[in-house]
Amino acid sequence: MTLDPSVRWGSNVIVGQHAVIEPYAIIGDDVSIGHGVVIKEGTIVGNRVTIGDLSVLGKTPSANKKKAVKPTAELPVLTIGEGAKIGSGCVIYRGVTLGVDVLVGDLAGIREQVEVGESSIIGRNVAIEPHTVIGSFVTIQTSSYITSNMIIEDGVFIGPCCSTSNDKYMGRGDYPHLGPVIRKGARIGNNATLLPGITIGEGAMIGAGAVITRDVPPYVTYVGNPGKPLLERRENE
Amino acid sequence: MTLDPSVRWGSNVIVGQHAVIEPYAIIGDDVSIGHGVVIKEGTIVGNRVTIGDLSVLGKTPSANKKKAVKPTAELPVLTIGEGAKIGSGCVIYRGVTLGVDVLVGDLAGIREQVEVGESSIIGRNVAIEPHTVIGSFVTIQTSSYITSNMIIEDGVFIGPCCSTSNDKYMGRGDYPHLGPVIRKGARIGNNATLLPGITIGEGAMIGAGAVITRDVPPYVTYVGNPGKPLLERRENE
Amino acid sequence: MTLDPSVRWGSNVIVGQHAVIEPYAIIGDDVSIGHGVVIKEGTIVGNRVTIGDLSVLGKTPSANKKKAVKPTAELPVLTIGEGAKIGSGCVIYRGVTLGVDVLVGDLAGIREQVEVGESSIIGRNVAIEPHTVIGSFVTIQTSSYITSNMIIEDGVFIGPCCSTSNDKYMGRGDYPHLGPVIRKGARIGNNATLLPGITIGEGAMIGAGAVITRDVPPYVTYVGNPGKPLLERRENE
Repeated sequence: MTLDPSVRWGSNVIVGQHAVIEPYAIIGDDVSIGHGVVIKEGTIVGNRVTIGDLSVLGKTPSANKKKAVKPTAELPVLTIGEGAKIGSGCVIYRGVTLGVDVLVGDLAGIREQVEVGESSIIGRNVAIEPHTVIGSFVTIQTSSYITSNMIIEDGVFIGPCCSTSNDKYMGRGDYPHLGPVIRKGARIGNNATLLPGITIGEGAMIGAGAVITRDVPPYVTYVGNPGKPLLERRENE
Repeated sequence: MTLDPSVRWGSNVIVGQHAVIEPYAIIGDDVSIGHGVVIKEGTIVGNRVTIGDLSVLGKTPSANKKKAVKPTAELPVLTIGEGAKIGSGCVIYRGVTLGVDVLVGDLAGIREQVEVGESSIIGRNVAIEPHTVIGSFVTIQTSSYITSNMIIEDGVFIGPCCSTSNDKYMGRGDYPHLGPVIRKGARIGNNATLLPGITIGEGAMIGAGAVITRDVPPYVTYVGNPGKPLLERRENE
Repeated sequence: MTLDPSVRWGSNVIVGQHAVIEPYAIIGDDVSIGHGVVIKEGTIVGNRVTIGDLSVLGKTPSANKKKAVKPTAELPVLTIGEGAKIGSGCVIYRGVTLGVDVLVGDLAGIREQVEVGESSIIGRNVAIEPHTVIGSFVTIQTSSYITSNMIIEDGVFIGPCCSTSNDKYMGRGDYPHLGPVIRKGARIGNNATLLPGITIGEGAMIGAGAVITRDVPPYVTYVGNPGKPLLERRENE
């Protein structure tokens, strides 16, 4: 591995074989870095963080003709909070902030300008798009997809394989993309589908496999395709 | 790569560049190991196994505040049966047993305490959670999600992008998690959703995109959201 | 890294640490290759291509008892068009042709004998199976699954987490597999499910979470499970 003098090393750091630590990274105390890990320029890794093998941390987004992507210089570095655990095979971008004790599963991808609050869990294989804010004590289970411009408040539970979207017109025209908002403590069943711009109210529950096309009020349960209040479906049957 | 003297090497082994083979691994005859592969301590690789580039084999689960994860010392090593083929970019944990001639696609993840029977296929991008038992001659196609505490019997066919769950109350309270049981020869269509604790009967068939909320009897076909017998839906239309 | 004399190097190539470039690869001018990248034998990389860290390019499919896989010798090499951008952690096979300015997201997998036209976007975590043809200016968003033997025409938009299938009898018997055909400019909502062999007409629109079991005519919108014309559903409600 590279022992670049510009890297600032904490004490008691373990680094795997063939890892690449780029210049100006700041590595805390008691950090464990797996084999083949790539830590990009300037990344800040908190104390007691563990990083699985073959993960890429602090990647710079490439320019994109269709969407305006901020130049690197303007993006803050990736910051990983104390005690966070990062899986193997992950790809996490520059401009992400992971809170204290966050857990990121294997093969997860987190794009730039995403914030994840304290003690939240980003499951294996989860993909999170840019410009999304995730609160504290949130669980996002394996293989769920979190689109850009979403707000996920504290204590939300998202089951495995959930899908969200932010593009009402599916690639046509020039208009702002808006992801769903999921309020405090709401719970989303596995493989549920959320349409762009809707709000899932505080404490609401979405059934597994439901397709939610409009706002869901607080503390109610929606199921089905299209999603309707659970009570309504029972009465119709 | 590391030529650790504690690794036991079979004859005719090919090892890629920058691979890391940790101590006490046991590598069979005629094994092929790709570039950048990480094989963790003690992993047992059978004869004629091939391993794609940049896979991680034998990973130890990290401790988790919420769930009790067995200490490493108690987990048996990863054992890969003769003739198995492992893809590229996979992450497979300690405490997994893969049978003879199992095929694991690229970018698949298999957590600890999972057994996979002879000649089964774990597709690309599939994620399998802990404590699940998969029989022989099972096919799990690309990007499907297999939750923890599932039983999948011999000859089951699971199409692509299927989703399962094991947590009826979605993160609330302290109770046992129970995944679905899929009996012999049952077939699950692509992107179907299975709820916690249900049983799919022997030889049953689940339509693509169906959401299965209750037990399905043997040799019948369920479709729709919520899933109902195919015949019933036809009569209602 | 290997400085194999049989590799043909363009001018102004940047190669990351621990990258492996196998013999007979042809690397264009102004190419950027990330850390730990594996470029397999004979792969052709066009001018101005960028390749993220830890990707595998030009992988040879392994033999498979069930399906006849073409011997390597018959598969053409992987060809990456000028200006294409390949993400991190990708696995792309031999026998793939990526057009000019194609963008492939992180952790995407593309199997052998796939063609992708000019300026198309293959999202993060997308999996594409063998023998599929994708036109120009196509967008396939994050985590969608494209089965084998599909045709996706120019300008198609596929939202995130869509699922397709090609196997009507789910693993029983010996018959040709046929994926869906998606005609010019059609748009597919997120987490939609397409059954084998159907055709989505030119300019048609499929709602998020819809399950499409039969052909969809041009320029109409289908929603629901099973998918029906949007107008029809509205009249029934």
